[in-house]
Amino acid sequence: MIVPRLIERKRDGERLEPGELRELILAYAQGKVPDYQMAALLMAIYFRGLDPAEMNELMDAMLESGKRLDLSRLPVPRLDKHSTGGVGDKVSLVLAPLIASIGVAVPMMSGRGLGHTGGTLDKLESIPGFRTSLTLAEAEKQVARIGCAMLGQTEEIVPADRKLYALRDATATVEVIPLIAASIMSKKIAESLTGLVLDIKRGSGSFLPKLEDEIALAEAMIDLGVQHGCPVVALLTAMDCPLGNACGNALEVAEAIEVLNGAGPQDLIEVTFALGAEMLVLATLASTREAARAMMDGAIGSGRALHKFEEIIEAQGGDKRVVADPTRLPQAPHRADFVATRGGIVQSVDPRKIGYGVIALGGGRRNMEDKVDPSVGFVIAAKPTDHVKKGELLATIHARSREDLIVGRTVLEEAIVIGDSAPATLPLVSHRITARGVETL
Amino acid sequence: MIVPRLIERKRDGERLEPGELRELILAYAQGKVPDYQMAALLMAIYFRGLDPAEMNELMDAMLESGKRLDLSRLPVPRLDKHSTGGVGDKVSLVLAPLIASIGVAVPMMSGRGLGHTGGTLDKLESIPGFRTSLTLAEAEKQVARIGCAMLGQTEEIVPADRKLYALRDATATVEVIPLIAASIMSKKIAESLTGLVLDIKRGSGSFLPKLEDEIALAEAMIDLGVQHGCPVVALLTAMDCPLGNACGNALEVAEAIEVLNGAGPQDLIEVTFALGAEMLVLATLASTREAARAMMDGAIGSGRALHKFEEIIEAQGGDKRVVADPTRLPQAPHRADFVATRGGIVQSVDPRKIGYGVIALGGGRRNMEDKVDPSVGFVIAAKPTDHVKKGELLATIHARSREDLIVGRTVLEEAIVIGDSAPATLPLVSHRITARGVETL
Repeated sequence: MIVPRLIERKRDGERLEPGELRELILAYAQGKVPDYQMAALLMAIYFRGLDPAEMNELMDAMLESGKRLDLSRLPVPRLDKHSTGGVGDKVSLVLAPLIASIGVAVPMMSGRGLGHTGGTLDKLESIPGFRTSLTLAEAEKQVARIGCAMLGQTEEIVPADRKLYALRDATATVEVIPLIAASIMSKKIAESLTGLVLDIKRGSGSFLPKLEDEIALAEAMIDLGVQHGCPVVALLTAMDCPLGNACGNALEVAEAIEVLNGAGPQDLIEVTFALGAEMLVLATLASTREAARAMMDGAIGSGRALHKFEEIIEAQGGDKRVVADPTRLPQAPHRADFVATRGGIVQSVDPRKIGYGVIALGGGRRNMEDKVDPSVGFVIAAKPTDHVKKGELLATIHARSREDLIVGRTVLEEAIVIGDSAPATLPLVSHRITARGVETL
Repeated sequence: MIVPRLIERKRDGERLEPGELRELILAYAQGKVPDYQMAALLMAIYFRGLDPAEMNELMDAMLESGKRLDLSRLPVPRLDKHSTGGVGDKVSLVLAPLIASIGVAVPMMSGRGLGHTGGTLDKLESIPGFRTSLTLAEAEKQVARIGCAMLGQTEEIVPADRKLYALRDATATVEVIPLIAASIMSKKIAESLTGLVLDIKRGSGSFLPKLEDEIALAEAMIDLGVQHGCPVVALLTAMDCPLGNACGNALEVAEAIEVLNGAGPQDLIEVTFALGAEMLVLATLASTREAARAMMDGAIGSGRALHKFEEIIEAQGGDKRVVADPTRLPQAPHRADFVATRGGIVQSVDPRKIGYGVIALGGGRRNMEDKVDPSVGFVIAAKPTDHVKKGELLATIHARSREDLIVGRTVLEEAIVIGDSAPATLPLVSHRITARGVETL
C-alpha cells in the first residue's frame, strides 16, 4: 500500500479497490499511517465521496479495529436509538428505561455534547455518582441483568472511529455523509443490535440543514445496517426549536423523569413515543405502532418505566433517589424569569442560540477539557406559534451567578422572537425511512 | 485564527481574507499548526484553488519564513533560469557559466532528481569535490566575486516551502498550479533576481501533461514575478524525448562541457540559446534576441564560457580539470552498445522510461536516502523522426555491472520504438509567454 497513490486515486475520483480501505484504516488505527495522510484522504473523500461498498468496507475496518459487546446469547431482542443531535433532546433518558422495562435489551452507547448540542453522557452525569465509563464486560453483565446499560464509547470499541473522528473535527471533514454513517453505524453494530431506530434531526438546530442530505444519511445507515443483519428505521424529526422545555443537563434529567411519570411536554412525549413504537415493532414485541404505544402507556402508567430508570441509576453508581425527588439533582443558585416584552405570536426559539447559551452559562464545553456545570440552563415555556401576552413567562434562567443571569437574558432576547404573523414550523415527525423507501408522514 | 474554520471556508470555495494565509503559513513554519491540518487545507486547495491574491500572500509568507540572498548592492543584473524538470536536461550546467561569462550575475538555486527527472545538484556533484551546500553568505560572496554560484536550497531559504513541499509529496497535493507557482517563485524571489526565465516542459516527460496547465503555470509565475519587481519570460519547450543525448549525471556534465566547447547535440544547444537569449535581453545586455545569440556565440567561441565553468567548479571545491579532460569524471565500469533490431523511422524515445531507467541503473533515487551513482546512464544517439538501419547504434549503456547492462537493454527496448511512418513530435520551443501574453513560435 503506497498511501500517496491511494490518496491520489481518491482525489481523482476513482473508487478504492476492495481491501485497500481496510488495510489503510487498520494501519491508521495502529499508528502506521500518519494523521496528515489520513487528513488529506478525508478531504479528498469530502469532495469525491465513498460509494456504498467503500463505506461498508470503511465501517467493517473500524469495527475490526476493536472489540464488540457480546450480547448474542441474550434471549431477548437488542435495540438502540441514535439521534443526530439536538438541543433539549433528552429522548434517550426516557426511551432507554421505557423500552427496557417492556423487555427489550437496550445497550445504549452515547456521546458528549458537541457544538451547540447536548450529550446524553453529560446529562446522566448530572445524577450524583452516576458512572458512564463502563467497561465492555460491565456493560454486558448489566444488560443481561437489568436489560439496559447507558455508557460512553469505551477505549475498546471501534478505536479507529475515535481517532478518525478527532481528526475530522480538527480538519473540517465532519460533514461527509458516508463518513458520518460509517462512524455512527460502526458503534451501533458493535453493540450487537438486532435493530436500530434513528432520529434524524431537521431544521436550524440540526447538523445537516438540507432535507436531501438527511434522507441520504438515513439511507446510508439503513444500507449499512441491512448488510450487517441489523434492520434500521429512521424518523426525521423537527429541530427548529428545542425539544421539550428544559435545556441544560440536570434540568433535562428532571424533565425526562417527568415524562417517565406520565407528565412532561407534549412534543417530547410525541417524539419519544414515535421512536419507541418503531423500536418495539422492530423488536417484534408489538405488531403495530398503535399496539406499541399502548405498551409504552402501560409501562409508564404502571411505574415500571420509572422503576427501570432507578435500576439503571443504581447499577451505575448513581443516587436513585433523584427519581422520586428531582430536587436532589444539582440546583443552580440563581434563577430568574424571562418574560415577554410585547404581546404577539412566538416566531422562533432558535435552538443554536439556546444551545450555545447553555454553554455560555457553563453547562457545556468550549474545549474538550472544560468542566461542565450540570445545574445551569434554561427552562423554556414558549414554543413557536404560541400566542403570548406582554409580561407572560417565556423562560426561566438557571445560572451560577447574577452576572450569568444577565448572560442568559441576552441569550433569550436573541433566541426568542415575538411577531404578529403565524410562523412556519416543521412537522414534529415528518418522514419515516426504511429499507423499503421514504414515507412522508 | 481557528484553523478548522479556515479549512472549512476554503473547502466551501470561499477566498481567505488578507493576512489569514500569512498567519497560517508562518505558524506552520514554526510548528504551531500541525501537519494534518495543513494537509487537509492543501487538499481543499487542490479542489478549490487559490486566487492570484491568495497565491501572492502564500508566496510572501513563505519568503518571510526565512532569509534571502542579499545581492542588491551588486552593480550587475541578476538573472536565473528555472526548468519544470525533464530527462537529459543539462541546460543549467551550460547556461549558468555561459550567461555569467557575459556579465550577468547568476545566483542559481537548484534541486535534486524528482520522480523520473534528473536534478542539477546531483549532476554537479558528479564532479569530484564539488560542494553544492553553500551557505547564503558563501553564495553571496561567490556571486559578487565570479558572477555565479550553483547551490541547493539551504535551511535558511524559505523553510516553509521545504516543509510544505515534503507534506505535499506525501499527501498527493503536488499538482496544484498556484502551489507549484508559489513554491518555485518564492525561491527565485529569495535569490534577489532582476529577471527570471522559465523553461516549462511539454510532452510525455513533463509533470504537467496539458498545454493549458503549462500556460496557466507560466502565467501564475509571471504574475508573482511582476508583483515583486522581477520580470519573467517563459518558454514552453519539448520534453517528448530526452534533451540532448546524455542521460545520467556525469554523462550529462560531459555533454554540457561539449556544448561549452562549441560542440554537442543540436536540440540541447537550441533550447539553451533560446533561454539564454531571453536572459540577456531581460538583463538589458542585449537589445534583441539575435544580438544575444551573437554574444553567446562569442562567449563560447572565445572560451570565456568554458573558463567560467572552471571558475565555478574551483570556487565550489570541485576538480576543475574535468573541463579539459572529462574522462576525469566518474566512469562506469561496464558499457554496451544498443543497436536497432530493424530498420525504419524512430517513433519515440520515451523520456519517462529513460528517466526511470537511469534510476534503475543506480543513477537516481527511489527514496530520499538513496545514494546516487554518478557514472551510470545512457547516451542516446537516436531521436524521433531519425531514419535508422538495422544494426545501427541507437544508444550506449553505462552500468555498474554486467547484470545492469541487461537492465539497461530492457529499458531501451521499451523506450525506443522504431516504425515505418513519420511520427508527430513537438516543436523544440513552441510558445513564449510574458506579462503581455502568449506568443506561439
